[in-house]
Amino acid sequence: MGSTGSVGTSTVDLLKRSPELFNVEALTANRNVDLLAQQAVELNAKMAVVADEAAYKDLKSALSGTGIEVAAGADALLDAAERPSDQVMAAIVGFAGLAPTLTAIKRGATILLANKEALVCAGDLMVEEVSKNQATLLPVDSEHNAIFQVFDFENKSGIDHITLTASGGPFRCFSLQEMETVTPQQALAHPNWDMGAKISIDSATMMNKGLELIEAAYLFGLSEDKIKVLIHPQSIIHSTVSYIDGSVLAQLGDPDMRTPIACALSWPERMKAPVKQLDLAEISKLTFETPDHQRFPALDIAREALREHKTIVFNAANEVAVEAFLQSRVSFLGISDLVGKAVHTFASANKMTLEAVQMLDQEVRDWSKAQIN
Amino acid sequence: MGSTGSVGTSTVDLLKRSPELFNVEALTANRNVDLLAQQAVELNAKMAVVADEAAYKDLKSALSGTGIEVAAGADALLDAAERPSDQVMAAIVGFAGLAPTLTAIKRGATILLANKEALVCAGDLMVEEVSKNQATLLPVDSEHNAIFQVFDFENKSGIDHITLTASGGPFRCFSLQEMETVTPQQALAHPNWDMGAKISIDSATMMNKGLELIEAAYLFGLSEDKIKVLIHPQSIIHSTVSYIDGSVLAQLGDPDMRTPIACALSWPERMKAPVKQLDLAEISKLTFETPDHQRFPALDIAREALREHKTIVFNAANEVAVEAFLQSRVSFLGISDLVGKAVHTFASANKMTLEAVQMLDQEVRDWSKAQIN
Repeated sequence: MGSTGSVGTSTVDLLKRSPELFNVEALTANRNVDLLAQQAVELNAKMAVVADEAAYKDLKSALSGTGIEVAAGADALLDAAERPSDQVMAAIVGFAGLAPTLTAIKRGATILLANKEALVCAGDLMVEEVSKNQATLLPVDSEHNAIFQVFDFENKSGIDHITLTASGGPFRCFSLQEMETVTPQQALAHPNWDMGAKISIDSATMMNKGLELIEAAYLFGLSEDKIKVLIHPQSIIHSTVSYIDGSVLAQLGDPDMRTPIACALSWPERMKAPVKQLDLAEISKLTFETPDHQRFPALDIAREALREHKTIVFNAANEVAVEAFLQSRVSFLGISDLVGKAVHTFASANKMTLEAVQMLDQEVRDWSKAQIN
Repeated sequence: MGSTGSVGTSTVDLLKRSPELFNVEALTANRNVDLLAQQAVELNAKMAVVADEAAYKDLKSALSGTGIEVAAGADALLDAAERPSDQVMAAIVGFAGLAPTLTAIKRGATILLANKEALVCAGDLMVEEVSKNQATLLPVDSEHNAIFQVFDFENKSGIDHITLTASGGPFRCFSLQEMETVTPQQALAHPNWDMGAKISIDSATMMNKGLELIEAAYLFGLSEDKIKVLIHPQSIIHSTVSYIDGSVLAQLGDPDMRTPIACALSWPERMKAPVKQLDLAEISKLTFETPDHQRFPALDIAREALREHKTIVFNAANEVAVEAFLQSRVSFLGISDLVGKAVHTFASANKMTLEAVQMLDQEVRDWSKAQIN
C-alpha cells in the first residue's frame, strides 16, 4: 500500500531482487499510474489499485491484457487490504493510510508499518485491534525498526528508557532569525535521507520526531517520559534502548530505508539487502547533542499532545500547515505555531472509534485552514 | 572464582547490593587473604579458598569462628568449582583459570566467563564439554558480552560478521620509535578501563584484542575472517554484530565492568547496576579508525595462531613475555616479537585433552623463558 512513494519504491526494489521469497497480492498508489502499472507487471501482482478515482481509466488501459485486476477509490484500497496476503506494507503517507491499515489488522495480517499517522491518530484503537485479532506490527520507520530490533519485549521491566535519534534536519545550525525566512526549497533538502516532501518538511521542523515519539509510545507501550530524543546529525545510530544494567542496545547502519524494510520483510529471519555495509572507520566520527527546544518546539508540543490525548489534533494541524508551507502560505516557524495553537485549542479525545477519529481529524483540518486563511 | 581481582571485586560489589537475589556458595582468590576473608564474611559465603597453599594459615585464622569452610591449593579450587551453585563467575586471570572452569562446566553450571585463557587454550575442549554437559557460557568480557546481547544465535545465517572494538590502548598515537622505549608504568595506565596489570599490558600491546578475537571465534562459532577489529578510543560502543540486511546491532555503555557482569548475572532478565547511565550528548563525539598492523602486530599473530591451531602457544608465550616486561627484562615491542616467534616455532595442536594442553603450555613457557634469558 503506497507502492510508488519513497518507502514503496524501496520495498518494490527488494521484492524484485528476491522474487523467490515473495508473491505480490496487490499494489496500491495514490495517482502515479505509470509507475504503479510498471511495478504491477514487474512483480506479477494480482491486483493494482489507484486511490484517485480519476486515474482509473489510465490504469485500466496501462494494464489491459496483463490479467492484473484493476480498481480505484477509497473502498478499493480497503479491498486490497482485505486480500489474503501474509504481510501488508502500510506505506501510504498521512491520514489516508489509517483505514486500510486497520482493515489489514482486522484480518490478523502482519503489518509492516511505515505509516506514522495510523498510530498517531488511532494508537489506542490500533493496539486494541492488533491484540484482538492477533495481528503483528513490525515498524519500518528507521528509528522504530532500530528500537524493535533491540527491545526485549519479554523483559520489559529491564528497560529504563528508549532514545530516538534525530538528524536535526537541514536547519540544525540555523538561528531562530534565519529560520524565519526559510523557503520550501531549503526545507526539502534533507541532509541524510532521500524522502518524500511531507516527511522532509516534518524532518526540518522536527514534527517528524514528534510524530515518531507518539508512534513509539504506542508501539512499545511507553509513557512520554520514557522516550528521549537525541540529535545525531550523521543518522548512523538509528535509535537506542537503555537497560537498567547500563547496557544501551542500538541499531546502526548507513541511512538506506532498504535495511529496515528488509528487516521487517524477513523478520524473524534476515534477508540480504543491497545496501552499503556500514564502515565506521570510514565515517570516522559520530556526534551527538541535545535538541534545542526553543528553535524546535515540535517535540514539546508532541509530548503535550501525547500526555493530553490530542495526537489527532497534532497530526491534522501539522498536515494542513505543511501543505500551506509548501504553497508558501505559511512561514516555516508558522507550522509549529499553528500546531501548538491547535493542541491548546482542542479538547482531549481518548479511545475513539475510527469514525470519531475521522470526524475530529476533519474538524481540526477545517479549523487549521480557517486559521491560515 | 578470582573474587579479589578486578572482575571479582566488581562482581562482589553487585552481589552485596542485591543480597536478596544471590546466595554465595564459595569464593576463591589467589593470595589476597585479607580481602577474600572480608568478602566471604560480607557475602556470607559457605566456603573460601586461596590458591596459594602458603596462605592457608592466614585465611584460616582470619575466618576462625565464622563457620566459613576454608581450603587452599589447586585441588581446593576444583572443590569450589564442584559446589552446587547455579552460576560460576570464572574470573581467575590466566591459564590457572582453565581447570576450575572446566570442572564447573562438567557439572552443567552456567559459567559467567571472564577468563579469556580457558577458551584461548582449550576452545575445542570447552565448547565440546559445554555441549555435552548442557552447560551455558555467558561471556563477561565487555566486548563479548556486547556481542552476546545482540547476536541472534537462532538465525546465524543472517549474520555477516562481528566487529570487536578496541580502545587502541595508551600508545595508539605513539610512533614505532616511541614505542621502543615504553616503560611498564606507562603501559599500566589504560585510558578507559580500570583493570589488572596483565590485562593492562595486553591492552597496550593489543594482545588483549588478539586473545578476544580467538575467544570470539570459539564463543560464537566464527572463523577468523568473520571477526573484524575497529579502533574506538572512547570505548563506548563495546562491539557490534553486522547482519546481511545492513543492520549493525551494538551494545554501548560507560566503561564499567559492572554492566556486563550484571547482564550475565541476571540473564535473560536484567538487574539494576549502580553505573552511570550513558549520556551520548555529554560525550558528544565517538571516533573510529582502523588498527595499525605495523605498530600492533598482535592482531595478525592472533589470526595466524587461530588459523593454525596455535592459540595455546600464543597465550603461553604472551603470559611469560608480559611478566618479563613488568620486570623490565623484555622491551615493550619485545612482547609481540617473542609471541610471534613462538607461534612460528611451535607446531599446530588441535583438539587436545586438558593434560596435553597443560603440557604444551608448560613447554611454551619454558621455551619463552629460555628465549628471554
